[in-house]
Amino acid sequence: MQSWVDGQPANALASLKDRGLAYGDGLFETIAVKAGQPLLLELHLQRLALGCSRLAIAADQALIRSELLAYAQAMGEGILKLILTRGDSLRGYGASPEAKPRRILQASPAAAYPDAYGQQGIALFDCATRLAEQPLLAGLKHLNRLEQVIARSEWQDPAYAEGLMRDTSGRVIEGVFSNLFMVRDGVLMTADLHRCGVAGVMRAALLAAAERLFIPCHVTDISLAQLQQADELFLCNSVYGVWPVRAFADLSWPVGPLTRKLQGIARTLLDV
Amino acid sequence: MQSWVDGQPANALASLKDRGLAYGDGLFETIAVKAGQPLLLELHLQRLALGCSRLAIAADQALIRSELLAYAQAMGEGILKLILTRGDSLRGYGASPEAKPRRILQASPAAAYPDAYGQQGIALFDCATRLAEQPLLAGLKHLNRLEQVIARSEWQDPAYAEGLMRDTSGRVIEGVFSNLFMVRDGVLMTADLHRCGVAGVMRAALLAAAERLFIPCHVTDISLAQLQQADELFLCNSVYGVWPVRAFADLSWPVGPLTRKLQGIARTLLDV
Repeated sequence: MQSWVDGQPANALASLKDRGLAYGDGLFETIAVKAGQPLLLELHLQRLALGCSRLAIAADQALIRSELLAYAQAMGEGILKLILTRGDSLRGYGASPEAKPRRILQASPAAAYPDAYGQQGIALFDCATRLAEQPLLAGLKHLNRLEQVIARSEWQDPAYAEGLMRDTSGRVIEGVFSNLFMVRDGVLMTADLHRCGVAGVMRAALLAAAERLFIPCHVTDISLAQLQQADELFLCNSVYGVWPVRAFADLSWPVGPLTRKLQGIARTLLDV
Repeated sequence: MQSWVDGQPANALASLKDRGLAYGDGLFETIAVKAGQPLLLELHLQRLALGCSRLAIAADQALIRSELLAYAQAMGEGILKLILTRGDSLRGYGASPEAKPRRILQASPAAAYPDAYGQQGIALFDCATRLAEQPLLAGLKHLNRLEQVIARSEWQDPAYAEGLMRDTSGRVIEGVFSNLFMVRDGVLMTADLHRCGVAGVMRAALLAAAERLFIPCHVTDISLAQLQQADELFLCNSVYGVWPVRAFADLSWPVGPLTRKLQGIARTLLDV
């Protein structure tokens, strides 16, 4: 399906002065679409609105919502990517107050991951690339993604489905395109993302589910030593749901009961 | 003058899948052009080649050089901006080995800064935005520039021509779009840029000039306390040359002799 730019079918970016291109000055969302519905839409819109607020991008959230709904309807099924930039710029980092945010919607086929990733779990690569600590950008799905690009280039071996990223202080943070949860003594844990990392939509949905189900859950700093002592380990995102981690470095894990429970919840959230 | 994309006149970016737009996956250079000549071209090309090497972007450096020369010739005078992206991508952070780097050349009029900035010096804003420490990206002029965008949004008062940025550990690093030098007891000092910052072309040219002139120069960590005890302070970049700093926070400085000397050298480098 053809892309839309500002609500109109387009194959090209009409302006070479877009600040998304010049500075990565914008945000994005990657949304699973089934039966014409954008899944987890409210959580995607919440994160986008938070990003707009923190980066002071004055985008029309109601317009974005209606455009996502219309585009998903036209798509039917697949992955919908929204790129929202601050719009055009003169030369220089200063943004004009008149800059009009630009909305780019793109469709791609549904992700074709092996079923085994969800069933038997995945092997997690140990990335050397560290995430820098930048509280001003932490949590946001902004367009400054060179750290992820470099991390993803570290391995070509298809035996690894994802890679673990730590921050420059060595804390365990997330996957390259996923969030990470661990279970220890019945307690769910996921990284505090106030210094770096992307606060994923599926992570938010699973945290809410854990609260509803009275599963104790800590959002906290996690060391590599703690990770190594996990009883269960899993990754999540809003496209594939939950992948158990069965191997990392010289460690291995069976797929645990809490992982299976949350995987079931994720599956429900990604169904229509 | 019209922009060029991959050597052809163009007003638009033909692809919405460009990784520069999606992830800030690329580099840029901002080059002063006079009498049809791109100034400090060798230093710009050196930094670009280093960036390509560190980010593993397989761009044709000879082609870029010849294109910059041809475009500058056609421009005559002004500012030439080159954006080099890794090219198009499928969905996801992984880059295809077949991705073809994309070259975007844009012209804008020569910068119109008041003469007073160079003559009497400028007042330097104290930015709250800190630079994150990321050795993998430090020094490069890459497209992930949200920190600069946020820092530049901190002040609107035209009394400040530039802003000082420290890193998250509090070290003094650079201006938002300039590098910073200080003089203390006849010794020139500028920040070590191995953790963050952009290694500017004019900074490199002035470091080389200082060596030729036997001016002692340290590239080192600089604390705010050291900055406050500077005898002279100045900023530089490859468009405006050298601006003395006359005021920062509650401190003020006269324009010092070493600043004037290096300003003269910068002026020569930006002449044809």
